[in-house]
Amino acid sequence: MSTSSVSQLHVWLKDAHAMEEQAEQMLTAQAKRLEHYPKLKERINQHIEETKSQADRLEGCLKSMDESPSTMKDVSGKFAAIGQAIGGSMASDEVVKGGIASYAFEHFEIANYRALIAAADELGENQIREVCKGILEEEVNMAKWLEDNLDDITKAFLSRAESEALEGKR
Amino acid sequence: MSTSSVSQLHVWLKDAHAMEEQAEQMLTAQAKRLEHYPKLKERINQHIEETKSQADRLEGCLKSMDESPSTMKDVSGKFAAIGQAIGGSMASDEVVKGGIASYAFEHFEIANYRALIAAADELGENQIREVCKGILEEEVNMAKWLEDNLDDITKAFLSRAESEALEGKR
Repeated sequence: MSTSSVSQLHVWLKDAHAMEEQAEQMLTAQAKRLEHYPKLKERINQHIEETKSQADRLEGCLKSMDESPSTMKDVSGKFAAIGQAIGGSMASDEVVKGGIASYAFEHFEIANYRALIAAADELGENQIREVCKGILEEEVNMAKWLEDNLDDITKAFLSRAESEALEGKR
Repeated sequence: MSTSSVSQLHVWLKDAHAMEEQAEQMLTAQAKRLEHYPKLKERINQHIEETKSQADRLEGCLKSMDESPSTMKDVSGKFAAIGQAIGGSMASDEVVKGGIASYAFEHFEIANYRALIAAADELGENQIREVCKGILEEEVNMAKWLEDNLDDITKAFLSRAESEALEGKR
């Protein structure tokens, strides 16, 4: 196990931690604005709790590698741009676009954990690999839920848009 | 079929067209920078061709709905922010981060087409639904390829980083 690969694993774990902080912000903002989609809101709230716990687990990994939490601070905000770009432009169709943005962000997370798992595996860092596998499973489940529900969300949105148009609200 | 839902379908088709233009830019920039990963470069080049054809197919859908191409111009650049945010920060680990970014962007596209298919379906716009289903399949295949190859790309990157470190190049 060489120093350069271990350093790379540190960097990616810190990135993942910053990514989860960004995810928590995005999801919280999204859940707050949702009024008419209780099922979606409930699933997002559940994932906010998972996301907080994922950040804690990543912090545990970094500590186990003797990385102090203070050195994690320099990457916070690193994913603000992607979060804002994906989730920022909320229009009248925000529930659909928000669902799409969350689905994309989940896959951003999924790919990051797959790369982390491959790196930890290559370096024989079995404990870190297992933590990342656990988190990956939660991200995959959230992505699957969004995939299974996007059709219904889209159709419900169109139907609401129709009835609001009839009522002269738009 | 009501006017508000049809207008929504127009908007989403235009968004999808802008998204594919953004995808073409991102993929082209990415392929240009890749030197040591011929298999990835080849797959990206293949997807650039698919992406151009997808933009044409979406233009066809818009024309069939009597939307003139000129009204499509106002959304070009709409996805520049997300493209830059996802793909812009290319560091020493750019091949891995680039693969992750592409994977996320593919799923952004996948979710957009799923929503479009649901909307077209709801509106009985069968021809548009079928076009979008065809494009969706290409996006899913590209995402699947990236998923299947991210492990190898990550491990190849770590191994290159190691040998470059040994050679004193970093």
